[in-house]
Amino acid sequence: MDEMNDTQTAPLRFDAQALEQFSSDVLIACGLAAEDALQSAKVLLAADARGIPSHGIGRLWRYVNGLKTGLMLVDAKPETITETASSLVVDAHGGMGFPVSVQTMRRIIAKADTAGAAFGCVKDSNHFGIAGYYAMMALEHDMIGIASTNTAALGFPTFGRQVMFGTNPLAFAAPALEEKAFVLDMSTTVVTRGKIEVYDRLNKPLPSGWAADANGQPTTDACALIDSLLHRRGGGIQPLGGESEQSGGHKGYGLAVMLDILCSVLCGAPFGPQVFDTATSSARVSQFFGAIKISAFRDPAAFRKDMDTMLHDLRLCPPAAGTERVFFAGQKEFEHEDEARRFGIPLYQETVVSLETVSSQTAVPLPAPVA
Amino acid sequence: MDEMNDTQTAPLRFDAQALEQFSSDVLIACGLAAEDALQSAKVLLAADARGIPSHGIGRLWRYVNGLKTGLMLVDAKPETITETASSLVVDAHGGMGFPVSVQTMRRIIAKADTAGAAFGCVKDSNHFGIAGYYAMMALEHDMIGIASTNTAALGFPTFGRQVMFGTNPLAFAAPALEEKAFVLDMSTTVVTRGKIEVYDRLNKPLPSGWAADANGQPTTDACALIDSLLHRRGGGIQPLGGESEQSGGHKGYGLAVMLDILCSVLCGAPFGPQVFDTATSSARVSQFFGAIKISAFRDPAAFRKDMDTMLHDLRLCPPAAGTERVFFAGQKEFEHEDEARRFGIPLYQETVVSLETVSSQTAVPLPAPVA
Repeated sequence: MDEMNDTQTAPLRFDAQALEQFSSDVLIACGLAAEDALQSAKVLLAADARGIPSHGIGRLWRYVNGLKTGLMLVDAKPETITETASSLVVDAHGGMGFPVSVQTMRRIIAKADTAGAAFGCVKDSNHFGIAGYYAMMALEHDMIGIASTNTAALGFPTFGRQVMFGTNPLAFAAPALEEKAFVLDMSTTVVTRGKIEVYDRLNKPLPSGWAADANGQPTTDACALIDSLLHRRGGGIQPLGGESEQSGGHKGYGLAVMLDILCSVLCGAPFGPQVFDTATSSARVSQFFGAIKISAFRDPAAFRKDMDTMLHDLRLCPPAAGTERVFFAGQKEFEHEDEARRFGIPLYQETVVSLETVSSQTAVPLPAPVA
Repeated sequence: MDEMNDTQTAPLRFDAQALEQFSSDVLIACGLAAEDALQSAKVLLAADARGIPSHGIGRLWRYVNGLKTGLMLVDAKPETITETASSLVVDAHGGMGFPVSVQTMRRIIAKADTAGAAFGCVKDSNHFGIAGYYAMMALEHDMIGIASTNTAALGFPTFGRQVMFGTNPLAFAAPALEEKAFVLDMSTTVVTRGKIEVYDRLNKPLPSGWAADANGQPTTDACALIDSLLHRRGGGIQPLGGESEQSGGHKGYGLAVMLDILCSVLCGAPFGPQVFDTATSSARVSQFFGAIKISAFRDPAAFRKDMDTMLHDLRLCPPAAGTERVFFAGQKEFEHEDEARRFGIPLYQETVVSLETVSSQTAVPLPAPVA
């Protein structure tokens, strides 16, 4: 969602299937089981297809690196710690975040089918890509899907100056009929770390209201911020709502903590500033998944029809002077997905370069672009 | 939460019990059943005790007016439309919002005790006061509580210029041990209508980033905004995150719609711009309630202990230069509650005047202040 391209050149287009196979083969070459590798590849490619390259195949090098250095454990076996008819706590034991997340969301959907609503946590996990992927798994089952993860602490509370929570995204998906689904997938800080990094690479000042320095004062210096975050000197990214209570910053701060409670306190995982990456260990984040069965409330067909009305009316909302149109949550991503289906997955030059490196490291040939 | 006092004079203090009795007697005098009247009074007084007078006894005149004119139906009997072991849809048939909300949240908590998690909607309802009241009902049951309501449409989507959703609050409460609970209770627009009205009364320009005019352009004119909202000419209150995607406005917009889906689409109630007050009818809002049982995930005592650590660390987060301290969500309200318990409920002059009017209309004597 928080994406800005830091290249002016047009992207190359690749066949989605070929990139998925490539990613999967790379992860297998790193020692991952075939099924887990394929599942991970699917989630990564979904991000690129939906126009969220910050969470896509451009991160493959990180997983290769993580698996090779043991930051992510290649042979970890997820273990069910707690299970009831409507709940689940899974310990990922430091393995890859994607496969355990897909498995857990599948189990939550199955439980919700019987129980009406079900929730689950995964602890001692790793980065799971786009939260929206898991929330959207519920759609075809006539359910509302929910997914979240905590992240390394990058955000600081209103009136504070030290990072106390992650960019903690919330994904929420609700199905429609003719319209695409409503898919909210948002970080609860103003922006994510990836976007700060883009401004740093471009040597551009950050927009005001995004970040604070070690004294808790507003800053536009991306480079200093990243350094400060790395060494935990104070300062960080503003919560959604920005700098003050007047602008609603305490609400974004509250949402981020709410999601940390669901992801971590609910299952006994590390939370808040306890969650951070070091050179020798990954953040070991934790995740939260949920599904609510629509038929427990009303006829799903009627629900979907009302969703059609809602989404139709939102996208046809008269635009403000100087703007073109209004989007509902997820609409841009669905449009990007349609485009990717027709023309191939777009990858920018720096992503292709990183994949070439991954290819030579793992001896898995990178497919040629289709355009 | 979005409160600003529009008076410089010190408040008078009243005995909480006496005000509760007064409010209850007033509602009984309007024809409400005794139990429903008492329940309504309790929710109103909780708002004043917690420092949210915008939702407190200062609104009693509106309920008196609503019940007398039939905007709120005095003899409506809530009807259960759908019920499963983990879900509930209740039709309030246009009655008062408070009692049906308390009853529904009680039933949801009872269901969650068996099912692990449960959710319910109330449709064709009326204003239910502070959402946090209902979320907090879950705390003593070792549950996480959730509550929301839609409201008359006052907010407009990013890039749009017509109101498409309400200020739709989200309340989320999680229990702690020694620390007070985490209680998030936030509207998903930058501010609520009440705060705009205060600026209008004071004839002060709105802070930038709060509102847009009929063309969707930023405005600071509170009077014109209120007029525009009244006649639905376009313009409205910004979503949390403000004016642009850069500042995260699309996230607040997404959250507001998410809550509208849970409150209304999930139970077949009116949503979005269908929800509005007229001179002769109330908005007929709908509500959403949820409870998640902590023991379905881990030992509640261990959860509460971790919550203590989290909340302790948050309130002791080093403050930014120029600020005094950091608060966790709900902390200010708990401190206000402690103060109200010791010194009485604070009411400002204009509230007392409105209560005197209510008193003479209903022939229920207003208690004298204690200080």
